[in-house]
Amino acid sequence: MDLLERNDTGGIAHLHMNAPERLNALSDEMLAALQAQIDALAEDRDTRVVILSGAGKAFCAGHDLKQMQAGRQAEDGGKAYFADLFARCARVMMGLQALPQPVIAQVHGIATAAGCQLVATCDMAVAAQGTRFGVNGVNIGLFCSTPMVALSRNIPRKRAFEMLTTGSFVEADEAERLGLVNRVVAPDALGSETRALAETVAAKLSAAVKIGKRAFYDQAQMPLDQAYAFTGEVMVENMLWRDTEEGISAFLEKRPPDWS
Amino acid sequence: MDLLERNDTGGIAHLHMNAPERLNALSDEMLAALQAQIDALAEDRDTRVVILSGAGKAFCAGHDLKQMQAGRQAEDGGKAYFADLFARCARVMMGLQALPQPVIAQVHGIATAAGCQLVATCDMAVAAQGTRFGVNGVNIGLFCSTPMVALSRNIPRKRAFEMLTTGSFVEADEAERLGLVNRVVAPDALGSETRALAETVAAKLSAAVKIGKRAFYDQAQMPLDQAYAFTGEVMVENMLWRDTEEGISAFLEKRPPDWS
Amino acid sequence: MDLLERNDTGGIAHLHMNAPERLNALSDEMLAALQAQIDALAEDRDTRVVILSGAGKAFCAGHDLKQMQAGRQAEDGGKAYFADLFARCARVMMGLQALPQPVIAQVHGIATAAGCQLVATCDMAVAAQGTRFGVNGVNIGLFCSTPMVALSRNIPRKRAFEMLTTGSFVEADEAERLGLVNRVVAPDALGSETRALAETVAAKLSAAVKIGKRAFYDQAQMPLDQAYAFTGEVMVENMLWRDTEEGISAFLEKRPPDWS
Repeated sequence: MDLLERNDTGGIAHLHMNAPERLNALSDEMLAALQAQIDALAEDRDTRVVILSGAGKAFCAGHDLKQMQAGRQAEDGGKAYFADLFARCARVMMGLQALPQPVIAQVHGIATAAGCQLVATCDMAVAAQGTRFGVNGVNIGLFCSTPMVALSRNIPRKRAFEMLTTGSFVEADEAERLGLVNRVVAPDALGSETRALAETVAAKLSAAVKIGKRAFYDQAQMPLDQAYAFTGEVMVENMLWRDTEEGISAFLEKRPPDWS
Repeated sequence: MDLLERNDTGGIAHLHMNAPERLNALSDEMLAALQAQIDALAEDRDTRVVILSGAGKAFCAGHDLKQMQAGRQAEDGGKAYFADLFARCARVMMGLQALPQPVIAQVHGIATAAGCQLVATCDMAVAAQGTRFGVNGVNIGLFCSTPMVALSRNIPRKRAFEMLTTGSFVEADEAERLGLVNRVVAPDALGSETRALAETVAAKLSAAVKIGKRAFYDQAQMPLDQAYAFTGEVMVENMLWRDTEEGISAFLEKRPPDWS
Repeated sequence: MDLLERNDTGGIAHLHMNAPERLNALSDEMLAALQAQIDALAEDRDTRVVILSGAGKAFCAGHDLKQMQAGRQAEDGGKAYFADLFARCARVMMGLQALPQPVIAQVHGIATAAGCQLVATCDMAVAAQGTRFGVNGVNIGLFCSTPMVALSRNIPRKRAFEMLTTGSFVEADEAERLGLVNRVVAPDALGSETRALAETVAAKLSAAVKIGKRAFYDQAQMPLDQAYAFTGEVMVENMLWRDTEEGISAFLEKRPPDWS
């Protein structure tokens, strides 16, 4: 059984973290497996949407603490290993955001620490009722400093601060209200609802979704005038595609588009 | 009948987009009419608040797609025209934000694509129950890249991403919950409620509202220390006005201010 | 009776603004008293959490308007005094945010203008039912330009704009929904609930909370890649602490940590 299973159907790549006995911890091996899929997906022209889920009773419980403690055996007390570990983890997170395809987290059970960061990092998230979210490293003396980069870009400031310093859990409905997930569904509908969302996006003109996703995050970090100058160029490029010309014509003629 | 009607009463300029048969599309002509009013309002010392509404069954359905397709007849396939179009549209959007007067969108029916961008761009928005909001260009192969500049500065990240990549509509109540509109009212109260909000703002010391609106957007793009240095200067300037001295005195003496 | 009382128990410093007859206005004296405590707390290794509350019927009603009007007697009409006043006020606000300890606002009655700014500035806030929040300087001709720096970093843009330009109040429940406060409690439970939140945070490894709080605000102003590089370094430092090693070991061994 692979640590990270991949299943492709209908232009949707479903990545399934499969280390249930470790609550799908982001071990060195899991991070490497995720990075390998990210590298492959970045070049993959057939995949339109990515789903990320986890096996067993949790979506993901964060870093592999046993492995981290073992890293302390090195001469430097683990310093170089930890620096490399967090760099690799950040590379995975930024890699998911940089992927041309939208990535949807399919979340159940718990999503804690770097597992909560994964949810915050994905472009969208669907959660099963009963899912709990936390950045609770503070409970064991390790503040969730890297997870907060993603979390604080998803939810209001004071609530992010509370989660980080109290280590308390947020329930699924509250996570939706805060903007951490897009919707909450019945546990037995989690797979089908996530799939339906993925199929909705996969049915769009893929090139438009891809150029749009990239622009979404790029413009978010720009001042307003730069953001408009940049996205104006993106719109021009988009307009000049043959498929977009056809899409607009089809709409005006009230017929389905004939996309290549 | 003007494409963009203007009606001035009580210091409130009401701009009314009047191309109902085209769902008040942002055609070249409508953009020019909006820009002309923006230019006039920027110099207009009598106007304290601006309302923007649309005639017919929609607030605004975005760009004029027929006109855009016609633009492809040019030798360059429309490239220069599109670049100019998006630049003019961005100029209108940034112009509304840069106006000294607060601008309130009075929204009904649908507000889609650049029409949704208009709502997001206005300083405040009142929506009729039943209004639907979307950035659904993705449905016809044209990602709403410029609308997302405004939208993503109004609502939480994951919900903006969902609207942009699924093309799905958001209902008025949800739009309020997300922060895209300030309030939702009964359809037959839309005009009066928007007017009441405008009158509330128009009754304030206009110079204070104007210096504050400008500072609002400027400081939002600054790091914290710069934002405080900048707004501190704004406060000093504001304090030194004779009308502000009178306003504070009146408050302390529990009487209405005698403003010039 | 001190203008600003301080009471220390269990690692929690409780600052209590005590000028009820002036609604705990941020007079020159109150600002000086707050700054003195901030300076002391910045060096205070025993304090883990700070609570800020107000005596009487209001948390804080903003600047001391009588004192400000008196400042106009100077030869320059008050210009130098006002510039100094807003600089001192901003220093207090930024000082609260820069404190290594989390600061919790315990809010009741009203929190207006710079008093609302205080709430927005604190890392977390607990409000009594019935509390009203406003940035209503516009009502007297003085736009709340400095308060909006904090407010606009807490709540959605259009709602912040509305509060600033209409001067209208937001009720406690709405303030919670917007993200301005973390929770709303019964008035007679305000002290105990705030204390319970403070104790929850005070029970964590203090060094982790402190390094995390600083990183929280620093990373918020960085682009994503810088934010990850920076917080990665924070995580490495945190991991190398003996207490963090013990905290993780204790968790893995299902026992309470033995922290120094």
